[in-house]
This record gives sequence, structure tokens and C-alpha cells, in this order.
Amino acid sequence: MDLTTATWTDVRDLEADLAVVPVGSTEQHGPHAPLGTDVLTAEAVADAGVERVDREVVRAPAIPVGVAEEHRQFPGTMWVSEDTFRDYVAEAVSSLAHHGFDRIVLVNGHGGNVDALREVGGRLTRAGEAYVVPFTWFEVVGEHTADMGHGGPLETALLRHIEPELIAEERIEEARAGAADGWGDWTSYVNLAYDAAEFTENGVVGDPSEGSKERGEELLELATETLARLLEAVAERDVSRPEHR
Amino acid sequence: MDLTTATWTDVRDLEADLAVVPVGSTEQHGPHAPLGTDVLTAEAVADAGVERVDREVVRAPAIPVGVAEEHRQFPGTMWVSEDTFRDYVAEAVSSLAHHGFDRIVLVNGHGGNVDALREVGGRLTRAGEAYVVPFTWFEVVGEHTADMGHGGPLETALLRHIEPELIAEERIEEARAGAADGWGDWTSYVNLAYDAAEFTENGVVGDPSEGSKERGEELLELATETLARLLEAVAERDVSRPEHR
Amino acid sequence: MDLTTATWTDVRDLEADLAVVPVGSTEQHGPHAPLGTDVLTAEAVADAGVERVDREVVRAPAIPVGVAEEHRQFPGTMWVSEDTFRDYVAEAVSSLAHHGFDRIVLVNGHGGNVDALREVGGRLTRAGEAYVVPFTWFEVVGEHTADMGHGGPLETALLRHIEPELIAEERIEEARAGAADGWGDWTSYVNLAYDAAEFTENGVVGDPSEGSKERGEELLELATETLARLLEAVAERDVSRPEHR
Amino acid sequence: MDLTTATWTDVRDLEADLAVVPVGSTEQHGPHAPLGTDVLTAEAVADAGVERVDREVVRAPAIPVGVAEEHRQFPGTMWVSEDTFRDYVAEAVSSLAHHGFDRIVLVNGHGGNVDALREVGGRLTRAGEAYVVPFTWFEVVGEHTADMGHGGPLETALLRHIEPELIAEERIEEARAGAADGWGDWTSYVNLAYDAAEFTENGVVGDPSEGSKERGEELLELATETLARLLEAVAERDVSRPEHR
Amino acid sequence: MDLTTATWTDVRDLEADLAVVPVGSTEQHGPHAPLGTDVLTAEAVADAGVERVDREVVRAPAIPVGVAEEHRQFPGTMWVSEDTFRDYVAEAVSSLAHHGFDRIVLVNGHGGNVDALREVGGRLTRAGEAYVVPFTWFEVVGEHTADMGHGGPLETALLRHIEPELIAEERIEEARAGAADGWGDWTSYVNLAYDAAEFTENGVVGDPSEGSKERGEELLELATETLARLLEAVAERDVSRPEHR
Amino acid sequence: MDLTTATWTDVRDLEADLAVVPVGSTEQHGPHAPLGTDVLTAEAVADAGVERVDREVVRAPAIPVGVAEEHRQFPGTMWVSEDTFRDYVAEAVSSLAHHGFDRIVLVNGHGGNVDALREVGGRLTRAGEAYVVPFTWFEVVGEHTADMGHGGPLETALLRHIEPELIAEERIEEARAGAADGWGDWTSYVNLAYDAAEFTENGVVGDPSEGSKERGEELLELATETLARLLEAVAERDVSRPEHR
Repeated sequence: MDLTTATWTDVRDLEADLAVVPVGSTEQHGPHAPLGTDVLTAEAVADAGVERVDREVVRAPAIPVGVAEEHRQFPGTMWVSEDTFRDYVAEAVSSLAHHGFDRIVLVNGHGGNVDALREVGGRLTRAGEAYVVPFTWFEVVGEHTADMGHGGPLETALLRHIEPELIAEERIEEARAGAADGWGDWTSYVNLAYDAAEFTENGVVGDPSEGSKERGEELLELATETLARLLEAVAERDVSRPEHR
Repeated sequence: MDLTTATWTDVRDLEADLAVVPVGSTEQHGPHAPLGTDVLTAEAVADAGVERVDREVVRAPAIPVGVAEEHRQFPGTMWVSEDTFRDYVAEAVSSLAHHGFDRIVLVNGHGGNVDALREVGGRLTRAGEAYVVPFTWFEVVGEHTADMGHGGPLETALLRHIEPELIAEERIEEARAGAADGWGDWTSYVNLAYDAAEFTENGVVGDPSEGSKERGEELLELATETLARLLEAVAERDVSRPEHR
Repeated sequence: MDLTTATWTDVRDLEADLAVVPVGSTEQHGPHAPLGTDVLTAEAVADAGVERVDREVVRAPAIPVGVAEEHRQFPGTMWVSEDTFRDYVAEAVSSLAHHGFDRIVLVNGHGGNVDALREVGGRLTRAGEAYVVPFTWFEVVGEHTADMGHGGPLETALLRHIEPELIAEERIEEARAGAADGWGDWTSYVNLAYDAAEFTENGVVGDPSEGSKERGEELLELATETLARLLEAVAERDVSRPEHR
Repeated sequence: MDLTTATWTDVRDLEADLAVVPVGSTEQHGPHAPLGTDVLTAEAVADAGVERVDREVVRAPAIPVGVAEEHRQFPGTMWVSEDTFRDYVAEAVSSLAHHGFDRIVLVNGHGGNVDALREVGGRLTRAGEAYVVPFTWFEVVGEHTADMGHGGPLETALLRHIEPELIAEERIEEARAGAADGWGDWTSYVNLAYDAAEFTENGVVGDPSEGSKERGEELLELATETLARLLEAVAERDVSRPEHR
Repeated sequence: MDLTTATWTDVRDLEADLAVVPVGSTEQHGPHAPLGTDVLTAEAVADAGVERVDREVVRAPAIPVGVAEEHRQFPGTMWVSEDTFRDYVAEAVSSLAHHGFDRIVLVNGHGGNVDALREVGGRLTRAGEAYVVPFTWFEVVGEHTADMGHGGPLETALLRHIEPELIAEERIEEARAGAADGWGDWTSYVNLAYDAAEFTENGVVGDPSEGSKERGEELLELATETLARLLEAVAERDVSRPEHR
Repeated sequence: MDLTTATWTDVRDLEADLAVVPVGSTEQHGPHAPLGTDVLTAEAVADAGVERVDREVVRAPAIPVGVAEEHRQFPGTMWVSEDTFRDYVAEAVSSLAHHGFDRIVLVNGHGGNVDALREVGGRLTRAGEAYVVPFTWFEVVGEHTADMGHGGPLETALLRHIEPELIAEERIEEARAGAADGWGDWTSYVNLAYDAAEFTENGVVGDPSEGSKERGEELLELATETLARLLEAVAERDVSRPEHR
């Protein structure tokens, strides 16, 4: 049940304790993909996952601005500090738990949010306020995951499938030409870069031309299936905390 | 230019320093109107206002969860603390200013956000980081403003105009029957209530049946025109701070 | 019972759960009225209100520095950030509640404090720590309220009644000459100004010559009577929080 | 110049960079002395010191609630957390510095505030925002200092001199009978107590009957003279920070 | 140069801008390995790395308590919140930068610290305060890294090499018997566990009997060599921030 | 039992509720004594005290960076803000209490930490989380205490006894020559200095040549004996909070 379109009486009448919160970012994704990529993909995966399971699940509105200061050199990128992001997500999630929706999956579309969401999940779960786990769609798509870049094959593919008009097809070649091969600037297993602009000229990592619409369809199917399994696991899990040894 | 669908190169090529950020809330609006009312109305007004002016304006994604703990007794209502809300809005806005979009109107759809947005505007403006002013659509619609309730005539009207399928028409009578006449519980000019549930049974204030589609159209036109004028004023204003006396 | 002059054993022997906390500001009030105007008026109203009711009421010392950065261009104006002000008031109030004085009226003399005090009241009341409501004297004086400015008719009148020697009568004409007609600089129902110096040369809003001693007496009587009624209402109110719907 | 009674134009016309801020506490002082003791004594000393020097000095309103949780078992005692106290004092002081009053003495009447005020002084001074030093009157009265208790000889004496009607003379014997000899409960040079109620039954430490009016007069003279010397030193001091070695 | 044993004049006479800060944790490492494992290993690697390079490097004292709440069910485990840990590390590092040691490697021995240290590095580097990168020894030891558990082969091996007397050899079998095979409890690529006690009975992950002294020697050599290369890279890197696009 | 070298099973098997946490600082101690002086001395005293008592006591790792910004002009000095220091110590201590070690002595070696540790002790004790008292070794050594400076007779003596190789004997004369006689720059009983560099050229206060090895041995014995008595008192104390009066 989508909170944006439901009434409070609809929610009251629901038999459910499961919720999903899409979490994205508004940030550069190269000259060919929209700044909203991470919101749009997170929402698409969340919606498909919720539809796949045979349970009632509350679907919260997407959180649109995340941890993205690493893209600050690229116009239009928005961000908040990690502290503020954690608090905003944690408190929004707590308000769901207040109504009994206390098993929550954060469906994430942005790599920069991953650490912060895990921290939020731990904070709320250990405090017994809610059981909260983050799920990042491009980490769960099997062998595709290795191709994840930024505005690269995976994100381009998924967008071509779900929002094809938002990919500037005429700039794919430009995007490819200015792209970096990999994320970061590594020495001794350490990424020496903190800003994406240190290693990519146009903000792209990976080759977007390898992201076909068909691949996007497959990615969505993989992510959906995995999310559905996770939702089942979260619903059934014994979330009581272990005893002190 | 909508940041969600634009690329960073689109934003780079823009000649603009003006931006709007829709700010809403996901909270109960009675048995007949959706929890997303304040987001949907803020977005509709923001989009119409941006379209009306003869200037380039950046349009950020809407902030979906606000200051709404006063509705916490009604299922599905989401909220964050006022501190966290202020920080989230202020930092998101600062990231726009970082790219030169440093004249910003916060187009707000929720009464509970008003004080916090004014505080954020003051904080950023006085610090010289950006010139930021909040605009709350139902405060600017002339004599209609006096009819503002909660899920009442104004919000119902505007939704019937912009998202008619989201109004549960079959529950309008129920909504009306359980509604309060006015917001709050007043003695000596002081509102003694802090939770909406102290004075409204079903979350409604005002009579939604007085909110026709036509009235909604008029409200949108009034809000749009007023926002357009404000955008011009914000664009032209001398925002330097006064001298110490 | 005034906490400043009472001993702890006096307080221990009191049968009471009601308290008032005067809250003011030390800030410019034009060339003719003292920087302490908002403290002095808040204290006068608080004391008169306490005396008027037929109940024991604890009277805390006045909080002298508030939310007044908007007057920062005028020498002598003191302020703290809104965050710090809220915490200071909230914690001071909580310490009263610790002793059982957990129904508290914040008697306020400064417009800039209004939003922050309402937020503090909500925070403490919803948390069940104390029932706290703010009361701002110039908002409760009937038709006079429409004349409220800054260092204008109302404040000048009240001071002439309670502290006549603190009005520099010889500068009333100067104060009037440099005064603004209204508070703020409005376009499209939005106040575009954040600093008082953007719209008033000498810090005055409204005509102080319309603030006679007799009017001040009437204002005090109105505020006193209203506060007394509020104190009764606060004492009698069922402050339990509503059930979850 | 007293900020409470001065106008902003009076302050503007002042040639000064020196200010004093009285800092007190509203807390138990035994059955015989008022809860406001620390505010009243701090104000008396501050006023006398300002009058003694041959310079213009701005006198801010007293801060009435301080670090006093150690007295929380005694009705009427008010307090805020140390964090909030530090922020409130620091920001109030910074607002004075904003107008050029950037050499500031915090005239303190409460032992529990001492550490926090020193921390605030260090924070502002090292940041170059203002030069701020705390001064606690009962630490500067020569051999009398050794007699400092709580509601004991020194405070009782000073109050008998400055506010004789606020000492409940008929309870002096009771106060003396229930008093502790010294502050704290010491083992191995460590005070094992955190609450005054751990070592004093009625909140008194020291013998109030040894606090005559004459002694109070002498104390005020000593404190005044010392404060005057300090004000001169603060006015003349080179407050630039040392070079990095 | 070890800050613990050097004098300030020694440090003053140094030609250097490079520093290392060992960061550990005091937390359970099974029945056979000490709670201090992560501090001891971080220090050993840091010292060996500093010795290997042909540059002067400042060596700060190790930070002994980190992000380890996940081990809270095991007696003796210490931790602080992630917020506090980040602030403590960031401010300690900033104090080094104050003296010109503004290229800093955080030599880390604990998995739970990784995210927080990366965040600190980003915060300080983007602010231009210092260039700070974290280095976690067990992530840089080539194919060994895949064997990393907790109190498992790698940590046991390294301790047997550097502090053999701290491994309780008589409990290795017990440690092995109660160990988990892998870290976490995974479904759909998501770790559903937040506390180590959810998946390991005795706190061990991996087989400590596979951690020979010889393997430990090899691990130290690998980590040392990698750290030395990193120190060179950090010393030589252009750390200016990229231009806005 | 030393937490660094014990296993969690060792700690589990302990019958104890008493713990010590050494707290130091890494800061200048003149040209002759190491930056780690306050850590080394705190650890030596803590270890000797623990050994002296006939009880099981948990010994936590030392906290190495404290409140030392006052020495910031001297290279190599590290510090964190007082807020962060308090939080780090308080949370580390709370994690010990979580395992039942809820009577805790903070064995401190640095004057700058004293106020902050007392505040932490009050915060945790009043909240009922743990009973925590700070103990600063140079405050408990009888008449020697009066000789305490900085890198002066006491610290030099103790180091000569416990870590003689860390005293640069060849620079004792230099240290003495540049030393200040006393700590601070006093007028009217107020220390006008906030940075040590305002009153000492080389960072030394007091004459280190008066700190013989023999004196160091005596100091350690005095501190050990006093700490042992304190540990007994802390173990036996009724730590319930007093009743509200």
C-alpha cells in the first residue's frame, strides 16, 4: 500500500508490520542519465518487490537527497551531511514503527548511502525500536554486480527499461568517451580519491552502451526476485536480540 | 528545469540562479484524502509557478517527510523531529547554492512546516549562504485562506483539480461528519492542544464538501500567480545585508 | 511564589503544580524604549496574572536573552541561536517539572520567541514530561493586538504604565519619525526581510505616540485577565494524550 | 551602562569595548536564604565593580539558571545541562562581541558554574571571537574564601548587607543545626558525592550565624575592589594569541 | 617518530608532513585471543610500515576503543557510538594537522571501524583540513584477505607472530569448535544480523588453527610493504580538490 | 585484569564490578619529558593501585588524547574538544557498565582533563548508569601536590622512576632555564591566560631538577596507596541516590 495515495483509514485497516522505504539521491549520472537516477531506480525496484510478495507491505515515499558530496563538482548534485541523512532516515523510519510497521527494508539506489543506511539499521535494531535492513539493488543482481559503475551499464540499462525517455541516447557516445573504467583511484588497496571528479571527467564510470533495455529488464527481474525473498525473510525472522554471554 | 529528469550537463548549461524546492509531509488528511496531500499540492503549485515565470528556474525534488508529529495518532503519518527537518532542508538547499542557485523559494504544502522553514530561511540568509524564503500555498490564496482547515475545503478542492482519483468521494460524507470546525482547542487566545487528535475525531478540520474541483482550479491559479510574482521579486531583490547601525 | 526570593522549604510547603516562566529578550526597541522592554513587560504581566488567580503558582525568574538575531544591526541587542534558546527554556522548565510543577505557562514578551516556545511546549507535552503552553501578552489584548509593532504603541503604552522612567519621552518624536508602518517587507504574502534593519531605520515599527499610559493600564488589565483565565484552564485541563486511532 | 534600561542609541553612543555579564543560579540555599542568592549576589558585585572603575562598561542582564543539578533533591532548584548552559552563555556573550564589546568578564555567583564558565572563556578566546574571563566573587575575598560553604557564612553575610529582608532570620538556628561542616564527602582526596543531599540534610554547608551584615559589607568591598582591578587588567591586556613554537 | 616518547622539541625539529594514527578496538576475539587484538595488530603494522619507508613519519598513540557494539553480548567488549568515534578520531587528527602533519594514514585493525574512518577521511579531506586515508591491514594482504574472519586464521596468525604469549594455545580447539564459518547471516545478499552473537556462539569466525606463526610473519610483511607504498603515495599525491565542472 | 591481554571468557569468569580507566593526554611536557607523560604516569598509577587492592579489578586501556588545546602552540600536542572528550570517555565507561563493571575510577594524569572527568562522573552517576569517580594522581600526593607544575618536579620524578630512559637528562638544564614559576598569569585571583604559551617559553612550569628518581618512587607509593583506599571506598559505597526532600 502506497502511503502517498492511501488514506489513514486505509492504513489503519491493513494487517501488516512490513514496510519498504525507497532511498535515493539526486546527483550527476553523466551527460546521458538523469540526476534522479537513484531515486527512480530505487522506486522501481521497491514497487516491483512489493508487488511480488504475497503479503501486505507499506510503501513509503522515496527519500530524494542522500550522501552525495563526492559528486559536488558536478552541477545539480544535491546532498546532505551523513549525520543529517542518518537522522532523517532513522526518524522517518521510527515514525512508521510507531504505527506498528516495525520490520522495514530500506530499498536503496545509491552507493554513497550504503554505509549510512547500515548504521541506521543497526542503531534502530539494537535499540529494539524496529528491525531495519538496507537493500541496495545493484549489489544483488548476481554477476551483473561486477559491472556496476556510475551512470554505467547497469543504471543505464535499468533506466532504459523503466524510464527510456530519460536517457539522452544522443549523448551515449559522449558519455562513453569521457567515462572512467573503474570507481576510484587506487593504490595499495586504498582509494585515494574522495571526489568523483578526481577520476572521471564527465561523471561516468563504466560503459553505458553495454546497458541495453533487455539487460535492464533482466536486472529488474533479478532485483525484484531478491527483494521479494528478503521481504519474506524479514517478515519471518526472529528479531529478538541475543542473550549476554 | 526539473532536477530529477535533467542531466548535470543540462544544469551546467543553464543561465539561472533561482530554484524552488517543494516541501511536503506524509500525514493523515482524513478518511477521504491521501496521506501524500501536502507533497502533491506543493509539487503542483511549484511546477505551475515555475512554468508561469519567464525565467529559468531549477526545480528540486520534493521533500516528502516533514514536521507532523501532531498527527502521530493517525496511522500512516510520518514525521521527523523539527531539528532534523531543519537540517535536512537547510543542507539540501545549501547544496543547490553551491552550484550558484542561491535564490531559493521553498514551496510548502504543510502548516506544520511553516515555522521551521522560516527559521531555515533566516539561518541561511543571515549567514550569506543563500537567499531563501518559504512560500506556503494556502496562505496566499486571498479570502480562501480563511477556509483552510485540514483535509478540508481547500486541500480537497485542489486535489480534485490536480489528482481527482485520489479523493475517495464515497467517504466525503463521513469525512464531513467527523470533522472539527476549526484547528485547535483555544482558551485565552492560546491553543491548548498539541495533537490533532485532541480536537478532531477523524483528522479532518473544515468541510471537504465545500471543496469543488472548480474551486481547486481557482486556488491553483491564485497560488501560481502569487508564486510567479514572488519568484520575480526574489530574483530582483537586493539581498545584501544592512549595515550595522 | 517567587522563586528568586523564596527558600526551598517555602517551595516544599506549597500545594501547587502550576508555574509561570517569564521569557523576554534584550534587544533594541527604538531610541525611546529600553533594550529590556520584552523582559520587563513579560515580568509585569506574569506577576499580575499570578496575583489575579486564586491558586498557588510558582513564578520562575525571567529568561533575559532570546531569539533576536533579526535586530543584530542595532547596538546592544543580545541573542542566542534558536536551538540554544529552545534547549535552555526546555531544560529550565523540566527542572521545575522535576519538583512537581508540571503545568507551566511561558509568559512571553517577544515576537521572535513565539515559534520556539511553541516548539518547546510541544516537545515537552508530547513526551509527557510537563504540560507547557506559551502565552504572548500582545497577542491576547483584543483589538489592540492589530496595533502591535516594535517599540510602537503597545509596548510604549505598557512601559509608560509600569516603568514610566524608562521611556525617553524627549525622543518620542524622533522615534515616530524614523518608524516603519508595519513589520516586514512583503511581496506575495511573503516577508522578504530577515533583518529588522531592512525595513526600519531606527528600529521602531508603529507610532509610539499612540501609546499612552492609560492605554498601557488597559493593556495590562486585558493581559492579566486573559492570563488568569489561561492559568485556570491549564490547571484544570485533562492533559493525557489521545489514543492511537 | 545597564542594557536592560538603556536604549540602543545610548549603547551606540558609548565608547567602550568592556562588558560584564552576571551569571547566577536559582537553587536551594537552605531554609533561611533565597533560591535566588547566586543571582542577587552576582548582580550586586557586578554593579559595584562597574561603578568602581573609571571606564564605560556595558552591564548585561543576569543569567538566572545555571549548572545546579547537584541540588535537584531540594524543591525549587532549577538547572540546565552543562552543555546547554555553556552554549547559552557563549552565544549571549558572542552577541555582545558582535557590537564590539569583546572584552568580557563573567561575574559569577555559583560554584557549580565555575568549570563551565572557564570552558566558555577558553572556547571564545582561543577562537578569537572575544576575550572572556570568569570571575567568581567568593573566590576573591582573601581569607574569607576559606569559609565558603553553601548558604553559609559568606552568602548569608552578603545577603544581609544587600537584601536583608530576604534572609529568614527566624530560621538561622534551624539552618545552622542541619548544616554540614564542609562541601562533599571525601575519601583519598576525592569527593565521592555528586548530590548535595548526600552530605547535607537541609542544604546548608557552613554556619550562617557567622555571616553578619558587617562581614557582608566587607565582602562586597573586597569583591568590588578585586573586580575593578580585573576590569582594568582585562581592558589593557594584549589578547593576541601566542605564536606557534 | 613516536609521539608518546618524543618531546615537543623533537617534533619541532622534524622535517615531515606525514603521520600515522593506529586505530583499534577493545573487543572479544574468542576464547583464545585477547580483547586488545585490534589495537595490537594495528600498532604492529603501523610501526613496521613507518620503519620501512625512507621518510620521517609521525606516529601517534593508538586509539583503543572503537565501533564495536556488535560484540556487546561478549563480556569485556568496549565501544563508543559511531558519532563519538568519528568526532574523536577527526579532532585528534585535526590537532596533528594544526602542527603541519596534514597527510595522515589511519592504520586500522578493526572491521567495524572501516566505514566510520572512511567518513572521517572524506570530511577532513573535502574541508581541506588534512588529507586523510584509512588503511585496514587485513584488506591488503592479497589472497589471505578472503580468509579474514574474527579471531580466525589471520588475526591468530599475526598475534602468534607479534605477541605469541597472548594466544591461549590451550583453547584453540575450543575456539575452533564454537566458531562460525562466515561473518553474518545472509539472505538475498543482505546480512540480517546486527550482533555477532546472532551467528557465532563463542565470538570466533573462521578456523584459528589455520593461523600459524609463519603465516603471521607473512601477513605482517605483506601489510608492511603495502603500507609503505601507501605512505609514499600519500606523501606525493596532489591533494588539491578538483574544479567545479 | 587487563582488558588488552585478557580474553572475553576470562572477563566472563571474573567476580567483579570494579574497573579503572587510565586517562591521559599526548601533549608537550617541555624539552626533556615525553609528549606521552600523562598517559604513562596514569597507567603506572592505575596498574600499581589495582595490584595493591585485594579485589578483582578490570583495567581498561588508557585513553591517549584529552583536553589539551591550551598547549596547541607546542608541536606534537594532540587534543580533542571538551565535548568530544566527555562523550568518548562517558560512552567507553558505559560499555564497561553494560557488562556489570559499574563502579569505575578514572585514573587521570592530566590537569586539563579534571573538569571534564568530574562532569562525566556526575552525568553517569546521576543517571544511575554507573558510579564513576575521577582520581588525578598529582592531587593526592600530600604536600608534594603543591609542587605540581608542568613537566616540573613531580612529573619528571615519576618518569625517572618508571620510565627513566624517556627523560632527556641532557636537556634538564635547558628545561629549567626556560620554565615558568607557576601555572598561569594571574590578576585578581583570575588566570588571564588560556594558552600555556602565554606564560611559559618552553612549556615547563616548575623546576624539573627537583624531581629525583627517589622522589618519583615516593610519589608512586603515595598515589598507589591512595588509589587503593579509594578503590575500597568505591567498592563499598552505597551509591543509591538521595530522596527528594
